[in-house]
Amino acid sequence: MSYPNSIKNLIECYKKLPGIGEKTAERLALASINLDEEIINLFSKSLSDVKHKIKRCIKCNNLTEEDICKICDNPKRDHSVICVVEEAKNVIVFEKVGSYNGIYHVLDGLISPLNGKTPENINITSLIKRIKDENIKEVIIAVKPSIEGETTALYILKILEGSNVTVSKIAHGIPLGAEMDYIDPLTLEMALEDRKKLYEY
Amino acid sequence: MSYPNSIKNLIECYKKLPGIGEKTAERLALASINLDEEIINLFSKSLSDVKHKIKRCIKCNNLTEEDICKICDNPKRDHSVICVVEEAKNVIVFEKVGSYNGIYHVLDGLISPLNGKTPENINITSLIKRIKDENIKEVIIAVKPSIEGETTALYILKILEGSNVTVSKIAHGIPLGAEMDYIDPLTLEMALEDRKKLYEY
Repeated sequence: MSYPNSIKNLIECYKKLPGIGEKTAERLALASINLDEEIINLFSKSLSDVKHKIKRCIKCNNLTEEDICKICDNPKRDHSVICVVEEAKNVIVFEKVGSYNGIYHVLDGLISPLNGKTPENINITSLIKRIKDENIKEVIIAVKPSIEGETTALYILKILEGSNVTVSKIAHGIPLGAEMDYIDPLTLEMALEDRKKLYEY
Repeated sequence: MSYPNSIKNLIECYKKLPGIGEKTAERLALASINLDEEIINLFSKSLSDVKHKIKRCIKCNNLTEEDICKICDNPKRDHSVICVVEEAKNVIVFEKVGSYNGIYHVLDGLISPLNGKTPENINITSLIKRIKDENIKEVIIAVKPSIEGETTALYILKILEGSNVTVSKIAHGIPLGAEMDYIDPLTLEMALEDRKKLYEY
């Protein structure tokens, strides 16, 4: 004897999600039985909604329910500055900060030939096209500091060589509130390299 | 700007599940977009199925899609032995072992007055009724060794005092493959107390 079919199916579905193994899937499926009727309905509806309504913005590749996402569609934003991020959820992080008023370009990951991510299939071509077609003044590269991130940043920098665009990169260094003893040497090196002059006597 | 509505709703639904916080819910919701169409359909259907089809077996309180679960409904099983477990998923664990051929009684948790679990609301009354009505010869108490588990076991033992039923408890002790150095003192004490005589010279 094992679980009734509906529970067994639900366990299998939870297991398809990243980081969810057999035991966790079982726990989640059993917990789902106790969710309120309205949550179950919303859950079930949103699952099919995200599959059928969510598209990629035709301009910046961000997740959207329309053809063009709310950011690209907002005339109040500065359409001459593009912030290049690795994936759609990074846009939300920047938007939560609230101080950036430009637009975005969402890559499909970072250059990593070992994982089959070449410049051709991570959406860089459309970035170059946008920079040429739209009147872009600055490209801010906001990818994480890693070999893949640096490679991607360098690649974009190389490609834009000679074009009339400022290319910048967000600062990498010590995060707020970090204990200096626990900072890894590479971060410290980046922080040293990117140091800012405060005053000159 | 935040996520499109369907994603936002899905994140909220995942957050209702135990152990899923904001970040994990976000990760799961974004991963759900990439699930196959058929998985999404099954997921969505099973969610509503578990809510609407899953009931409690009227005899043993196990999860079932029928009125009486497959175990209680199986005439080949020994209906004179009842194994008392804390929750429905424990039944599956016992069934996986495969050597137990009796029936079960699923409690709704263990006695724990601090958490509002009194003998009245954890399904013990129906256990006593079953033992009286059906021709039960043995009650095996298979709850975890903890204060709540011991209290529940003692309570059942007390109530059955004088009735013509054998009450037993599964053995608590050193699990298979455990390193003796890492066993906690209480488990070791239980193992000592429950020792079996091998031979007498």
